[in-house]
Amino acid sequence: MTNTPPSSTPLAPGARIGILGGGQLGRMLAVAAAELGFNCHIYCPEENPPAGEVAASTTCAAYEDESALTRFAESVDVVTYEFENVPEKAAALLEAHVPVRPGPLALATAQDRLREKTFLREAGIATAPFAAVSSLEDLKQAVATIGRPSILKTRRFGYDGKGQVKIEADTDLAAAFEEIGRQPAILEGFVPFTREISVIVARGTDGKIAAYDPGENVHKNHILHTTTVPASISEATAAEAMEIARKLIGALSYIGVMGVEMFHLETEGALVVNEIAPRVHNSGHWTQDGCAVSQFEQHIRAIAGWPLGDPARHADAQMLNLIGEDAHNWQAFAQDAKCHVHLYGKKQARPGRKMGHVNRIRALTR
Amino acid sequence: MTNTPPSSTPLAPGARIGILGGGQLGRMLAVAAAELGFNCHIYCPEENPPAGEVAASTTCAAYEDESALTRFAESVDVVTYEFENVPEKAAALLEAHVPVRPGPLALATAQDRLREKTFLREAGIATAPFAAVSSLEDLKQAVATIGRPSILKTRRFGYDGKGQVKIEADTDLAAAFEEIGRQPAILEGFVPFTREISVIVARGTDGKIAAYDPGENVHKNHILHTTTVPASISEATAAEAMEIARKLIGALSYIGVMGVEMFHLETEGALVVNEIAPRVHNSGHWTQDGCAVSQFEQHIRAIAGWPLGDPARHADAQMLNLIGEDAHNWQAFAQDAKCHVHLYGKKQARPGRKMGHVNRIRALTR
Repeated sequence: MTNTPPSSTPLAPGARIGILGGGQLGRMLAVAAAELGFNCHIYCPEENPPAGEVAASTTCAAYEDESALTRFAESVDVVTYEFENVPEKAAALLEAHVPVRPGPLALATAQDRLREKTFLREAGIATAPFAAVSSLEDLKQAVATIGRPSILKTRRFGYDGKGQVKIEADTDLAAAFEEIGRQPAILEGFVPFTREISVIVARGTDGKIAAYDPGENVHKNHILHTTTVPASISEATAAEAMEIARKLIGALSYIGVMGVEMFHLETEGALVVNEIAPRVHNSGHWTQDGCAVSQFEQHIRAIAGWPLGDPARHADAQMLNLIGEDAHNWQAFAQDAKCHVHLYGKKQARPGRKMGHVNRIRALTR
Repeated sequence: MTNTPPSSTPLAPGARIGILGGGQLGRMLAVAAAELGFNCHIYCPEENPPAGEVAASTTCAAYEDESALTRFAESVDVVTYEFENVPEKAAALLEAHVPVRPGPLALATAQDRLREKTFLREAGIATAPFAAVSSLEDLKQAVATIGRPSILKTRRFGYDGKGQVKIEADTDLAAAFEEIGRQPAILEGFVPFTREISVIVARGTDGKIAAYDPGENVHKNHILHTTTVPASISEATAAEAMEIARKLIGALSYIGVMGVEMFHLETEGALVVNEIAPRVHNSGHWTQDGCAVSQFEQHIRAIAGWPLGDPARHADAQMLNLIGEDAHNWQAFAQDAKCHVHLYGKKQARPGRKMGHVNRIRALTR
């Protein structure tokens, strides 16, 4: 694990980029890489991954398969990932052969909610009040300190609302701890926020940082529904959000694109960081059609050691996720000249499955 | 061969698009198709084609290999191509299994310079004066009628200045006819043009037509060097050029994107059509960064039976081709925030080889 930026010798076109994970983020990263002349090698346990359709090669193997990982590492010039739950051992094994970007520190921080919140606090960034929970006894003590309502979350492997339970006035704590499988957890105070915003931020091997304008996120069934840019916040708040994102990415000596989710507390005028995603992020998909350089190209530029591109926005945008059967409406979106349809090539529209998204573009208002 | 548009039932996401040809145009088409949720099958004789790196499958076989062509046709829902010299027999064989778009009429017209010029004349479009040449005797007669300077071109398989010889005041006609291999040819009068422009135009299965703004082309060593938009022509001339392109694409009952090259004769204020390319065209690469919908997405939308996208331009643009060792300058372009670098993943930068292009974007002036 290192805190110093790797060498900034840029990868030449034709170089090979390894991507852990074969879903839609990997697919969009592979497309962005192809446009810069790179070719991609996808590594994931699932057969026929969406990203495999746009990559030069695909390895279908477990993240615990050391010989497959070694062959993968030897076939590429840099490794990146589309998801934060890359096993630590896999990352370390790969790193012995080839640069892994954003890098183990970012992974370790983002994989563990307790570590993440501690990092934020140490960086001087406001978070919800939190306490570590390893036992029912811890949980009782934490609830006594933090109060109700609050949220009990597993430290690891949670996303899209999974691995968490709300502690309400009448919630039985023993049952709640059972519900998350008695895993190491964190209790977080409930933040009475007005809106969620997120900032997509990138840092290059030269240490330069580029932040996109904040987007405003609306969730449905714990899954991102829309991101709207500009967010309905003041310019000062937008600038503050971008500054927080810049500060965090610098503190992590991060290489690549990162998503920073924040709560905006209107009454107090404050921003509270909720989560860091050490990867391209669903709330940054609007950059594909609203900016000169998308988050996907930006990530590839960063991990390839290229200078970052311009994150300037040339349009207002609203990203709408197509979840499950939403994707069946593609014809309506295809007919709307202001809509840019992005579909992931997934064969089955299962409920809750991210099938695609639509970016609706409007003239720039600010 | 049919003149009526095929059924307009749109292909659903997940459908398979076959592309004949594995070069950079096929690569950029495959990327555009992937973004709409399609997956691509590349067919070409060359091994390891640039397009294969971004496609779900690749068949490496000759265009004369009937059993490979049949298997290819059976594996896809529609076939398109990145180059106009698809053998007639291959197109007919594929068409027996699956729609081939733009279609045989467009191919047959564009493959034969005599047929193309005759089509243009019959459509009431101005061309350079021309005459068919099958023998040295024909050539002598044609030169007597059309005069010198003029240009002798093979009817088939010419591109980037290949297969043609200029007939100057002192050119020996027998030697010139030898030089083009005594093939069936066409003599074209020399047009004293001020500039070359081109219009990228698309037509959908519903018969709707969308034209992009004309670009102004500058060649170097007979290869496109830059395309600049807007072209330095009046708005009336631009409108006329777009109208010519619309007329031609309608007359061909064409499905897909087509490039129409025209000469602008400033003194006479006239436009003369030089060539039709029945495919996405190098002079339309600026649309990737200057328009909401690129020529590549537009072509995929058209051949998939989707409604066409909006060809509106949101920026001024200049496309610069990176030929051979030009591509070694990628670092300089990567550092310029206004430049969008597109590289094709080709391993060797041979002289004259198209390695990539750069779109430089400026604020819209008109």
